[in-house]
Amino acid sequence: MSDPWHECMDHCVQVTKKAGKMICEALKKDITAMHKSSPVDLVTETDQKVEQLIISSIREKYPTHRFIGEESVAAGAPSVLTDDPTWIIDPIDGTTNFVHRFPFVSVSIGFAVKKEIVFGIVYSCTEDKMYTARKGKGAFCNGVPIRVSGQEDITQSLVLTEVGFKEDPEHFKTMLTNIKTILTIPVHGIRSPGSAAVNMCLVACGSADAYYHMGIHCWDMAGGAAVVREAGGVIMDITGGPFDLMSRRLIVASSRAIAERIAKEITEFPVGRDDTDDS
Amino acid sequence: MSDPWHECMDHCVQVTKKAGKMICEALKKDITAMHKSSPVDLVTETDQKVEQLIISSIREKYPTHRFIGEESVAAGAPSVLTDDPTWIIDPIDGTTNFVHRFPFVSVSIGFAVKKEIVFGIVYSCTEDKMYTARKGKGAFCNGVPIRVSGQEDITQSLVLTEVGFKEDPEHFKTMLTNIKTILTIPVHGIRSPGSAAVNMCLVACGSADAYYHMGIHCWDMAGGAAVVREAGGVIMDITGGPFDLMSRRLIVASSRAIAERIAKEITEFPVGRDDTDDS
Repeated sequence: MSDPWHECMDHCVQVTKKAGKMICEALKKDITAMHKSSPVDLVTETDQKVEQLIISSIREKYPTHRFIGEESVAAGAPSVLTDDPTWIIDPIDGTTNFVHRFPFVSVSIGFAVKKEIVFGIVYSCTEDKMYTARKGKGAFCNGVPIRVSGQEDITQSLVLTEVGFKEDPEHFKTMLTNIKTILTIPVHGIRSPGSAAVNMCLVACGSADAYYHMGIHCWDMAGGAAVVREAGGVIMDITGGPFDLMSRRLIVASSRAIAERIAKEITEFPVGRDDTDDS
Repeated sequence: MSDPWHECMDHCVQVTKKAGKMICEALKKDITAMHKSSPVDLVTETDQKVEQLIISSIREKYPTHRFIGEESVAAGAPSVLTDDPTWIIDPIDGTTNFVHRFPFVSVSIGFAVKKEIVFGIVYSCTEDKMYTARKGKGAFCNGVPIRVSGQEDITQSLVLTEVGFKEDPEHFKTMLTNIKTILTIPVHGIRSPGSAAVNMCLVACGSADAYYHMGIHCWDMAGGAAVVREAGGVIMDITGGPFDLMSRRLIVASSRAIAERIAKEITEFPVGRDDTDDS
């Protein structure tokens, strides 16, 4: 039987490319105007425009499909994964980077059927790198097959995570303690590119060996999760249990050994879930 | 009077391009061999080859000029800046990135006369971005003029620094405390690209608003210092005093306000100097 979702994926690549172009156009706007007036408005406006472009294009072709999109959810739409074919969309992954024109900004789309991700697309548009992965068919960057590094020794690894401020003092303290714990293993270093989807793709293509994060959303993870899995990577929950798309947390690594070591070393803090009201 | 160092700079751009190509070739080597055998050997070998390429090409044309190069210094050459025309060279800035193929790897060259930097070149070779700056003539990326963001409000800024392990427990603690202090100002975020020269260029082109670092070397700073200054950026010592190329530390920012605020917030730790034996 031929893959019933093949056409969906082709369509997704096309619309993701268009979305990436729209983002690059927005980034060309006068930097002075952007920084001095209201960068938040600009990012919200572009975020919404890009999500509308993606959803309307997909809905026209697949009117019965469901959507979970960052901007739609922000506007009150539910964020619940059903068995129906569902497009999980982050129109701009790395909004802080977008505001600053820091090089990693991506469009991330995951497509799930029966709650399982069938394919994922991440377009790192400022780098012009299109990452694509379909279940059982491998992962690619601009059409070239990619693989994780295969590194099993955490002391030889480069680790990605977010280094940001958190309002909750306990969460903030735990985040900093985790960074200290990981560094003292020791590892080669920590990098913080600032886009969850790109982070996963960097692990997928072997440019980093692990990535962990608490507090992100399903739309940040869905596209990249497919890419990293198909590239031979391991993806699990922060506790070492199975990865849960709605759990708002993950560990991604080049090997089970590294993923499990990170799960063992870091301390979790409560982040709620995407599919309940406490998120 | 025409600029007497114009020809030197043109030559520098040519040799930097060749050096960057050599690095990109090395990065194409089989990733499995690289990770599983000895990544340290590979980086040392490439580092030395690239530095030899640069120095021999410049020495042939300018036999009386002096050199301070990372690899030469490692091999016992002195690291003292005199009044003579001196090329300050980092053949691979971002060696950890190089080992992992993390996207930011650069060749950095600064040219000083009478202890003052006359021009600087940073070639971020995996991105194919050639940053060039000559004193009083502006800064460019691939020939296009660049400017810092001009941001003066630190709470709206994206800050770059190194997030790494340090053997000395006091230094390590101070580094982590500084990250916490900067994040709680608060700022938009911290990013750690992992190449000092690229960090300076990211501030120079407005993709980040500040960068601070203790423990780097003159060859990490010389090229980027010229770029960031000519792009309208501010560069100072970690204490808020004048920048000293041999001091192994710096703050770079889009404005004096942000640089001074970082100088005020962070705690210094002793790192020695490049031009004395205690480094």
